[in-house]
Amino acid sequence: MIFIDWGTSSFRAWRADASGAVLDGVETGQGILEVPQDGFPDALRATIGPWLAEGEARALLCGMVGSRQGWVEAPYLPCPAGPAEIAAALMPIPFDAARLLLVPGLSTRDAAGVPDVMRGEETKLVGLLAELGDAPGLACLPGTHSKWARVGGGRVQGFATQMTGEVRATLLDHSILGRLAAPDAPGGDAAFLRGVRRARDSGGLLHHLFGTRALGLMGDLAAAETESYLSGLLIGHEVAAVLAGGAAPEGAVHLAGAEVLCRRYALAFDEFGLAHRLHDPDLALRGLMLIAEGLPA
Amino acid sequence: MIFIDWGTSSFRAWRADASGAVLDGVETGQGILEVPQDGFPDALRATIGPWLAEGEARALLCGMVGSRQGWVEAPYLPCPAGPAEIAAALMPIPFDAARLLLVPGLSTRDAAGVPDVMRGEETKLVGLLAELGDAPGLACLPGTHSKWARVGGGRVQGFATQMTGEVRATLLDHSILGRLAAPDAPGGDAAFLRGVRRARDSGGLLHHLFGTRALGLMGDLAAAETESYLSGLLIGHEVAAVLAGGAAPEGAVHLAGAEVLCRRYALAFDEFGLAHRLHDPDLALRGLMLIAEGLPA
Repeated sequence: MIFIDWGTSSFRAWRADASGAVLDGVETGQGILEVPQDGFPDALRATIGPWLAEGEARALLCGMVGSRQGWVEAPYLPCPAGPAEIAAALMPIPFDAARLLLVPGLSTRDAAGVPDVMRGEETKLVGLLAELGDAPGLACLPGTHSKWARVGGGRVQGFATQMTGEVRATLLDHSILGRLAAPDAPGGDAAFLRGVRRARDSGGLLHHLFGTRALGLMGDLAAAETESYLSGLLIGHEVAAVLAGGAAPEGAVHLAGAEVLCRRYALAFDEFGLAHRLHDPDLALRGLMLIAEGLPA
Repeated sequence: MIFIDWGTSSFRAWRADASGAVLDGVETGQGILEVPQDGFPDALRATIGPWLAEGEARALLCGMVGSRQGWVEAPYLPCPAGPAEIAAALMPIPFDAARLLLVPGLSTRDAAGVPDVMRGEETKLVGLLAELGDAPGLACLPGTHSKWARVGGGRVQGFATQMTGEVRATLLDHSILGRLAAPDAPGGDAAFLRGVRRARDSGGLLHHLFGTRALGLMGDLAAAETESYLSGLLIGHEVAAVLAGGAAPEGAVHLAGAEVLCRRYALAFDEFGLAHRLHDPDLALRGLMLIAEGLPA
């Protein structure tokens, strides 16, 4: 069987045998944003064509390839959902002599009825569930849109997205805050933690953001510290909001994602007295395999 | 005497006699961003040259013209400060046969020692002080960078900036939130108030921002409502943060600024049960004249 994680900016595919042993893999930078509207079949043939020619008949795909901007939109599956519910909701697409199966995203609604969505992270969370079993817990997958998921009973019970990474990038690239920023100083932990601590003061995020500029103008923050400080502010506000919402877990927060980002989240968790457990970031393939276990042979 | 309000994107000048009667006025779109580094003298001659030729010898200037990106940087004057302290801190610039006097910006530090700055708004606040006298109060000047100032004893005692307007514009123009937005529907008050109310839920601003997208994807928010909803979210978080910081005044909040913006802030204040009093938005000239009263003849 073939397993594919096709996101906004990257493409990864693996070929595995029935025992789950990986036979081959391919990785490209051709995320869905690089693929023209009708170009998905050709883009896929160019990468996994040889495997299909050798007789593979099924491919399981997760990520933004199943979004409105992707190949076909796979509707969001409401929480709670685990590997079995996801396997039952796969969207089939005929493809040459093979069959593609798109993993649906997940949706949830909070106490106020406001919706939230994820696409791609549900597969990583399934991979994480394999480690956590049925135990209840809180998982944090930091990123452009950080996902905080409540898990338990072997399923994703609900989640909340924090737009931290995208807000940071947008403000640095397009607001007045970026004008004072120079490339990050090596070892910006002190400035990062200063931002995390500032997030615990009153005044609100919109006030603290402007403070980044005021600190720079008054000579209280170096240009090379601006990025780290701003990250600290935003991640600090993210963690403070999660804790204020009553989501603090009894055990450690399960943290998985890019190494640099996880390191910063771990620093912020320490500052808030929040225990964490770091997991292998490469959860997508494991999640895909677990979803595939729920399929008829 | 000549009075000039020279901001980032506009230039306004008035000529007044000793009694304060306005004799003439000129307004252009040539804000400081439109003026080349060494082009300020020429830009000024092009507008007020005729008045100087007729014998005016002094011009009082406020706004971003006194910033690092302007003509000459006029240092920030620490709060508390009123018209007398500002008049004593004007920065003189010789200009042909005349003398220019730059109004300094104001700076303050909060309980945590973090600085804040304003430039241009101090003059508007002086204009507002003329109405308020020595009474203590809280003023809100909404804008790209909203200024919340504590006034009392005829001086600005301190203030806090909220980056609300710039964050809104940056997210609409450069983040994923703008992709779902269509031009604002006429009468977007309902969507605006929905955003204000959402700001009172738990989860934090970074979560509520992503919710704007989730609401759109799930068909719960129309494209034409996105801008108004986002404004409501941000202004709601601004007001909530100000109130949580203990800055709620005993009386009404003194509100002054662009009509459309003040209308929205007034709606948000109502939602939070916060009384307000709307003031004439054209405070800059009045403030400049009051500062000039403190000058030796």
